[in-house]
Amino acid sequence: MDFDQTKAYETLRTLSVGRESFDFSELDAKRVESFTVTMAAGLCYSYAAAPVDEAVLAALQDSADEQQLINKYRAVLCGQIMNTGENRKVLHHLTRGQVAEPVIHNGRDQRAFYLSQQERIAAFVKSVHNGTICGSTGKPFTTAVQIGIGGSDLGPRALYLALEGWATTVGRKRMNGYFISNVDPDDGTQVLSALPLEQTLFILVSKSGTTQETLANELLVKSSLQRAGLDPAKHVVAVTSETSPLANNKAYLDSFYIDDFIGGRYSSTSSVGAVILSLAYGSMTFTELLAGAHEADRLALEPSIQKNAALLDALIGVWERNFLNYAATAILPYSQALSRFPAHLQQLDMESNGKRVNKDGHLVSYKTGPIVFGEPGTNGQHSFYQLLHQGTDIVPLQFIGFSKNQRGDDIMVEDSTNQTKLLANLAAQIVAFAKGQPVSGANRTKEFPGARPSTLIYGKTLNPASLGALLSHFENKVMFQGFVWNINSFDQEGVQLGKILTKKVLSGQSGDTALDAYSKLLGIE
Amino acid sequence: MDFDQTKAYETLRTLSVGRESFDFSELDAKRVESFTVTMAAGLCYSYAAAPVDEAVLAALQDSADEQQLINKYRAVLCGQIMNTGENRKVLHHLTRGQVAEPVIHNGRDQRAFYLSQQERIAAFVKSVHNGTICGSTGKPFTTAVQIGIGGSDLGPRALYLALEGWATTVGRKRMNGYFISNVDPDDGTQVLSALPLEQTLFILVSKSGTTQETLANELLVKSSLQRAGLDPAKHVVAVTSETSPLANNKAYLDSFYIDDFIGGRYSSTSSVGAVILSLAYGSMTFTELLAGAHEADRLALEPSIQKNAALLDALIGVWERNFLNYAATAILPYSQALSRFPAHLQQLDMESNGKRVNKDGHLVSYKTGPIVFGEPGTNGQHSFYQLLHQGTDIVPLQFIGFSKNQRGDDIMVEDSTNQTKLLANLAAQIVAFAKGQPVSGANRTKEFPGARPSTLIYGKTLNPASLGALLSHFENKVMFQGFVWNINSFDQEGVQLGKILTKKVLSGQSGDTALDAYSKLLGIE
Repeated sequence: MDFDQTKAYETLRTLSVGRESFDFSELDAKRVESFTVTMAAGLCYSYAAAPVDEAVLAALQDSADEQQLINKYRAVLCGQIMNTGENRKVLHHLTRGQVAEPVIHNGRDQRAFYLSQQERIAAFVKSVHNGTICGSTGKPFTTAVQIGIGGSDLGPRALYLALEGWATTVGRKRMNGYFISNVDPDDGTQVLSALPLEQTLFILVSKSGTTQETLANELLVKSSLQRAGLDPAKHVVAVTSETSPLANNKAYLDSFYIDDFIGGRYSSTSSVGAVILSLAYGSMTFTELLAGAHEADRLALEPSIQKNAALLDALIGVWERNFLNYAATAILPYSQALSRFPAHLQQLDMESNGKRVNKDGHLVSYKTGPIVFGEPGTNGQHSFYQLLHQGTDIVPLQFIGFSKNQRGDDIMVEDSTNQTKLLANLAAQIVAFAKGQPVSGANRTKEFPGARPSTLIYGKTLNPASLGALLSHFENKVMFQGFVWNINSFDQEGVQLGKILTKKVLSGQSGDTALDAYSKLLGIE
Repeated sequence: MDFDQTKAYETLRTLSVGRESFDFSELDAKRVESFTVTMAAGLCYSYAAAPVDEAVLAALQDSADEQQLINKYRAVLCGQIMNTGENRKVLHHLTRGQVAEPVIHNGRDQRAFYLSQQERIAAFVKSVHNGTICGSTGKPFTTAVQIGIGGSDLGPRALYLALEGWATTVGRKRMNGYFISNVDPDDGTQVLSALPLEQTLFILVSKSGTTQETLANELLVKSSLQRAGLDPAKHVVAVTSETSPLANNKAYLDSFYIDDFIGGRYSSTSSVGAVILSLAYGSMTFTELLAGAHEADRLALEPSIQKNAALLDALIGVWERNFLNYAATAILPYSQALSRFPAHLQQLDMESNGKRVNKDGHLVSYKTGPIVFGEPGTNGQHSFYQLLHQGTDIVPLQFIGFSKNQRGDDIMVEDSTNQTKLLANLAAQIVAFAKGQPVSGANRTKEFPGARPSTLIYGKTLNPASLGALLSHFENKVMFQGFVWNINSFDQEGVQLGKILTKKVLSGQSGDTALDAYSKLLGIE
């Protein structure tokens, strides 16, 4: 049933009348202390600065109940075909653990399959770390490079960067990690120029084994290895599906598998993320990440929005998008380690919910996924926050912060550590956005209108478990929103037309004069 | 005069009725060939896929004429007080050359002042490169690190990355460059861990000399230098204003100056960008970048939108924002070298035009600056393009592409180079967004609605001159839009309230129970 056909939709619409600007004058200690939901792995979700009151929260709960969001999540977990257009199950939760009953597909227990790949990867990683598996000149591997694009790049890269400081500090950093993604040859060339090739292991990641960019970069890398007198077959492993041309292929040192039930943007906890993260930080680190994600997956089954942060976050987002008419959401982590986490969430959210048709292929008559963007604070404060505070549009904000920084080093400057300054800025921004500041007099240049809503995810420290919980939180949030909007959050038909037209250009037979003219402008011969 | 008080506004409003979806069926070779404006340094601006026809273009020209946009630009160039609220001139154009008559302030020729700093920097850089100026142990400097935030970080960092491949290939790479910006101590600690401290020169950049993050990072760096037995006074130069505490200070090896007439986000071509870029790639490279920017600044004086790409781009953006009601713009460079250019433009645009009051401090009743975000293609194609193609909102797109890549290495894969694949993707996307693709049958999952507008800036290669032209193009575009909207694009009052509240938190006397409660959640003691 489309969202606008539900009873809750009408209730929410009625509640939204005259509420374009939420009054945060009642935002006080009591509201901050009580508007909090416990998440997994020590995280909490604070929604005191979200534009909701008891009436709205009750209507959001009714909406969740009426649309049976938890049952739909349970259907995902149990292996129903939730990616209907592509006739696929959606099983990334099983890479982290068994939340509901076992899922058997063609006689195979899917959880057992994903686990078997994790075990194979752990064994492989152990052999690399102890020097049993070496490069073609017999030297141990010190460096791992992931070759992949989209979901094979953004998620694993964001997680790699998120844990580097932590791993360095606790002594778990085992290898350096790099990433090559863009078909622009300058990307691969630049990364390669910094590498000790003789001691570098490449991880080629493509589920289909046919991704244009990734295969192009594979050849760029192999050509580089060959020029250095190295044997590519001893320097490259593949992560792919069992039916792809990369599987069981002598051209690779080894192959690790996923299947069609793991969508690219949901694949960080599968073999797609496992190899690079385990090589870099050890298999135990990856296991801890999975445990944090699994705990969050279990909490997401809770029917009450007061106990289910992913569900509540999803519904607040729907309220903001469909009833307060906000077009975008900003992700603002006050943690440099999460510098590329917004780019991952940008894919996760915009590729999942940037849809205009419902699951039956009919146009929906309400807004779906918002624009998602973000940069770490405090950097963003000196950049685009001007518009967020005083622009003509309201953008809901998702803050993230941790009490402690990852790396030990810090100093006192003017009676506070830099970490304390970071957190003081975060607290200050939330209140500045919510409450604003009036001016006296006719000139309103220095006026802050306030009523700019935000939520906050906070915890003690960013480590594998809390990172896993954070990742799962957003995956499940996006999934719940897709359920509300009655869309398929698990396909990506919007990428197809560009691929077809690209092939036409490359074949020299586009059949479209505009396309030919653009090709000519760009100097394609 | 506010935009909605102009005659052109009414004409444009009338023209926009029923045009929410532009018909691109007439996008053919002829339109692609004729809807082009020559830019500086070999670049071109193609607007064939913009949602404009002759009637709209004529109305946009009328709007430019009626609001005297070129005269206002001339007023900037001539040193009128265009940053009215702060009572400041806006003189970043003078860092690139003398476009109009000389600007004398307090008896000083401003162009001569900026030029004198460039000459001082060139002499300093020469001494560093030839080893006359060394670190405190007598070893030559190999590495330069910029410490700054906002405009002292994003622009210089984007330019540094944009030229690294080019400089490496042509043999102009002289030193490695790094950047420390975030007050999160993990940022500085991570960068420092990768450096040969003994051979590293730090550039401390703060116009006021009081930026919290930058001073905090300065102490983090100095503490690190001292622990390594190095003398900070021989490893740090300052870029600041002549009246700041960092000026003429024995704590620094040298100081280079800007003044209040160079706004942070417009400062890349001043001393703020000059030191790091000249150290990394030589003063000649920086001079070439300035020449490209200067040529673009001169072209921006052209009254006809057919000859002034910055003006036309600005007006198309206004048409899309105010009459077609699009909330955001995506910046999509098909060049890995421009990986952080969207982050710079995000600041440039959102901090300049994210305003809700006009120059007199009265609320405007129309939308101003859009949300700006972006990532390089083809990476974005595997991420957020899904929403751009098939989401419920239309987002105008700004593509950028170059015929040749920067680094020599490329390979043929399936009869085409990777660079050709990159460009084929770019051409394909423009046409896919504009024309879409219908489906037969009731299921519209695979339908592409099209009518998603874009513009394209293209050229042969990304080098210092074309990069300078690109930078200037966007600076002038944003400035022209500010003129149309009758706002002050040169202040940033929206950053102030957060600073004040942060100080209250750090002093332990916030006087706001919500702020105290958030501080407590985050673990501030």
